[in-house]
Amino acid sequence: MTKPNTKILGVTGMPGSGKSEFAHFAEELGYHTVVMGDVVRARVVEEGFEPTPEMSTRYMLQLREEMGETAVAHLTCDAIDILVSEGKNLLVIDGIRSQAEVTYFKEHLDEAFFIVAIHVDPDLRFKRLQTRGRKDAPVTEDDFNQRDESELKLGLGETIAFSNYIIPNNKSLDDFREKSLSLLNELEG
Amino acid sequence: MTKPNTKILGVTGMPGSGKSEFAHFAEELGYHTVVMGDVVRARVVEEGFEPTPEMSTRYMLQLREEMGETAVAHLTCDAIDILVSEGKNLLVIDGIRSQAEVTYFKEHLDEAFFIVAIHVDPDLRFKRLQTRGRKDAPVTEDDFNQRDESELKLGLGETIAFSNYIIPNNKSLDDFREKSLSLLNELEG
Repeated sequence: MTKPNTKILGVTGMPGSGKSEFAHFAEELGYHTVVMGDVVRARVVEEGFEPTPEMSTRYMLQLREEMGETAVAHLTCDAIDILVSEGKNLLVIDGIRSQAEVTYFKEHLDEAFFIVAIHVDPDLRFKRLQTRGRKDAPVTEDDFNQRDESELKLGLGETIAFSNYIIPNNKSLDDFREKSLSLLNELEG
Repeated sequence: MTKPNTKILGVTGMPGSGKSEFAHFAEELGYHTVVMGDVVRARVVEEGFEPTPEMSTRYMLQLREEMGETAVAHLTCDAIDILVSEGKNLLVIDGIRSQAEVTYFKEHLDEAFFIVAIHVDPDLRFKRLQTRGRKDAPVTEDDFNQRDESELKLGLGETIAFSNYIIPNNKSLDDFREKSLSLLNELEG
């Protein structure tokens, strides 16, 4: 399915661990990012709906009901096929949550596919999410814990445990950038 | 419960990730290791039984049935109390598997307690376990997968995801030692 020199990195980690920062660092080296949530949102728009977070979640749950738990991985692979056919052979997939998805991607993408997990101390993650100021940023500790739990229920703990690489992100953004670029360069070699 | 300057590191990770190597590195800096399995084995001997792996597992399961899922953490805390009362204030606990155990240790050990997870790529873990030559080393891929699954069922994935620190151990033993000592020195500071 994929050509030589193709590298597709699935990035995973708990909420607020720094997945999108990692994707930005990869973009510095020519990677293109595919956000699984964006793939769903694009589909919501195609179907003529307003791509609100609620609508996207509803659509995603419906898809999973119809196509199984790898529904979003399936759509994402379609998006990846188009990118690869356009010559984009360095990709980051942001949003992988379960081993079922990992297995789906592995079968579809063969040896070009690796999982990179990002890890942050939970207290630090909470603080960073509080200051990130995104719409979906949890404000209370209850929200934070609930979001963590729902991600773990999908199998995120296993996905982190079974990842091919892990990058610690307890220190500064510069330190995280350095570690990320070092791993990305290693993967090139 | 614990005194200032006390540092107790719970080390966790999938089978073959390098938990006991981490404990050895910590011992270089004056840490004392408490292996949770040894605590169980010691209790098996005290009760007059042969401490075979089968007997220890049976005893452990019986303990969990009687005292709940934190039974081994409970026994381990008793052992820790003795060590701390003897002036041993730098400890590594090897063998933590579930968040219930983490919570038990946190309540008992207060702010002196941190979780350090070790991470290795699954294929590499399998290769290392094959060559490690310990009695309980899995020989086949089926054994390896089964052991991984049973650890994850106990909640190891969550424990890794919620750890305070993570050390990547995909490279050489020297690299792992350097990363471990660097973290241990940081914790001292």
